[in-house]
Amino acid sequence: MNNNLTVDVARIEGDLEALAALTDEGRPYTRRAFTPMFARGRAYLRQKFEEAGLETAIDAAGNLVGRRAGRQPNAGVIMLGSHSDTVPDGGRFDGVAGVVAALEVARALSDRGITLKHDLEVIDFLAEEVSIFGVSCIGSRGMIGARPSEWLSRQAQGKSLAESIAEIGGDPTKSLPRSDVRAFLELHIEQGPVLERRRLDIGVVTVIASITRIELVVEGRADHAGTTPMNLRRDALAAAARLVMVIEDLAKTAATGAAHFAATVGEFSIEPNAANVVPHRVRMLVDIRAVDESDLQWFRTGLDRAVGGLTLLTGVSIESRLVSTNAATSMDPQIIEILDSVCGDLGAGYHRMVSGAGHDAAFLSRIAKTGMVFVPCKEGRSHASEEWAETADVALGTAVLFEAVQRLDRCLEN
Amino acid sequence: MNNNLTVDVARIEGDLEALAALTDEGRPYTRRAFTPMFARGRAYLRQKFEEAGLETAIDAAGNLVGRRAGRQPNAGVIMLGSHSDTVPDGGRFDGVAGVVAALEVARALSDRGITLKHDLEVIDFLAEEVSIFGVSCIGSRGMIGARPSEWLSRQAQGKSLAESIAEIGGDPTKSLPRSDVRAFLELHIEQGPVLERRRLDIGVVTVIASITRIELVVEGRADHAGTTPMNLRRDALAAAARLVMVIEDLAKTAATGAAHFAATVGEFSIEPNAANVVPHRVRMLVDIRAVDESDLQWFRTGLDRAVGGLTLLTGVSIESRLVSTNAATSMDPQIIEILDSVCGDLGAGYHRMVSGAGHDAAFLSRIAKTGMVFVPCKEGRSHASEEWAETADVALGTAVLFEAVQRLDRCLEN
Repeated sequence: MNNNLTVDVARIEGDLEALAALTDEGRPYTRRAFTPMFARGRAYLRQKFEEAGLETAIDAAGNLVGRRAGRQPNAGVIMLGSHSDTVPDGGRFDGVAGVVAALEVARALSDRGITLKHDLEVIDFLAEEVSIFGVSCIGSRGMIGARPSEWLSRQAQGKSLAESIAEIGGDPTKSLPRSDVRAFLELHIEQGPVLERRRLDIGVVTVIASITRIELVVEGRADHAGTTPMNLRRDALAAAARLVMVIEDLAKTAATGAAHFAATVGEFSIEPNAANVVPHRVRMLVDIRAVDESDLQWFRTGLDRAVGGLTLLTGVSIESRLVSTNAATSMDPQIIEILDSVCGDLGAGYHRMVSGAGHDAAFLSRIAKTGMVFVPCKEGRSHASEEWAETADVALGTAVLFEAVQRLDRCLEN
Repeated sequence: MNNNLTVDVARIEGDLEALAALTDEGRPYTRRAFTPMFARGRAYLRQKFEEAGLETAIDAAGNLVGRRAGRQPNAGVIMLGSHSDTVPDGGRFDGVAGVVAALEVARALSDRGITLKHDLEVIDFLAEEVSIFGVSCIGSRGMIGARPSEWLSRQAQGKSLAESIAEIGGDPTKSLPRSDVRAFLELHIEQGPVLERRRLDIGVVTVIASITRIELVVEGRADHAGTTPMNLRRDALAAAARLVMVIEDLAKTAATGAAHFAATVGEFSIEPNAANVVPHRVRMLVDIRAVDESDLQWFRTGLDRAVGGLTLLTGVSIESRLVSTNAATSMDPQIIEILDSVCGDLGAGYHRMVSGAGHDAAFLSRIAKTGMVFVPCKEGRSHASEEWAETADVALGTAVLFEAVQRLDRCLEN
């Protein structure tokens, strides 16, 4: 590892600490999009962007943009960034590290008096995490013109998403994809245990796994828990429990293949949820991540069969609904090669890897050459208050970003 | 079945309809204790009690009491009643039928100019169902001096239970058991399918099953659902699902024995309950009903072993806590015989049976000779909006109560 970093470790640490302190009281680290704490985080970032000489604005999609003009008019934009919003209870580095790294790259360029050929933009994307509106990547989808228009009427905290975007400074009526972005780079913590276990500094992302969400609703019959004989019940929870087991078993089998695969029941609720009533309804949401489309198909076929079998076996009805699905997204081959060579030159231990998590980069890849840099995090923990990344690791990733931006600036064809 | 009933079917129907109409809007049939709708139900009953010539009062425990003095001072009280509060969504007859039947017995006695030797009391017990305070049978426990004093500080809707009892008209500082009650009779819908399936009119209850509640808390680890490999997870929901299956399997096995047995997971919640986070915590409440103590012990041993095995197998921790347990309660042999003979004399089809559900009668049996009369309900449904009992069936049960009260009045030793 290179100790003469081209970026300022203390500045990075200062920003990470300052943003960690901006958390809902008693609930570290929580700064969900559209909440007052999120606005405080944005205010901090905006000030830091301006101190770094960036011209700041909120774009139509609600993203915070810090812009530094390039030498060559109309060369287009090289964009760096991630998101400052968090999931409940977890997100000290998830997203934040990438925004701070992008900001630090701008500062490091400025320190050295380097002006790129391309314009540089540092972005804090709006609401990458599943927000209070129940949807994710609102800002990056908005930037590429792929935010479903029906989302705008979704309600939370007594307001529509459209009103909430406007309140943040965006313009929900505009949704044209940007055409000037040439390249996008995002640094992110791995959110998995692989880099730490292999003692590597950097993961160069080759592909972002597909994300598929399936809602399952089990309908049984509410009966008195004391008097209804065991053999005359249609217990929705008992059936749903079997479904959760099937999902775990199928996922474990699919994950034994060559490509990354994971499936999780993250949301699960029962009705009426009363001590002395046999549950009549369970709703669950299955989150499926796949790189190999055939793994996803195999899993879904197995799930469909289990749904059919359980319906016959238990007498409950089970409705299965595809909530959303995104294809797996490949990163740009040229950017992957640049990142490989930068890592080699800086003496960083690195390997190419899959992202099991979704990222704003998956959307940006539809309008620009896109790449991702992963840095290690402790025990792979993420979306939890224990999430941790060493500042030195974030700084090395930032240095990779700093070098990669300059090479990209030279290599991108006009 | 006797068509010349000694009770007034139309009055019974009128009361049942009037109380069914007093339900939280859009949520039939919901009239939970300590809510404004409960107060409206109580006001209706109090007026009807007074129209029936009963002297009404709220006792210290918060029960509505309608009293009719007997011929012989100090002979003591024969008490009839049940409860007018409901579970959420279900309770058109559960409890209500017994209060209306008790009221009708008082009216029928009055119609015929009959004054019993003993004082007669018609009771609407407070909060028989699990209330907003998380506990049940508050009124009947209070009447027998068995309401745990620590319950009084429980909070709901910004008030303590003590304040809520006082608001209803009770006096939470008093908790002496009544010593003047000689006998208690409760009519209730069966809340199970047995009477309907056997085409019987009346169930004479011999024993009320024990109720045991065990809380299980599964602690795993919150991780990112996309990136954490399947084999490195400690998924609390996946482990809890296996526990739910074990509970159902054990209960089905125990229920194949001679005595009634049932176990139900009625409450179940997960944390953080977010689409893209592996659940780190599940809390569930197991409700166990048994008549034979050895069935309960066998079930609990099996559950303990499963908890130990799952902890080893899945790496989660599981805490098991006994929340409450009441022994099975036998009804009074003399009352059982009186009810048998009344049924025979009235030409009602009847049999002796177990109550799988808990009732206020279980508590009253500690201070008085106690019996219960079950009437059929449709498909055994209860604690659900579909709960239904035919007025004719409730009326026949009421006629049994009317006769039984008079025989008890003669047979009870002084």
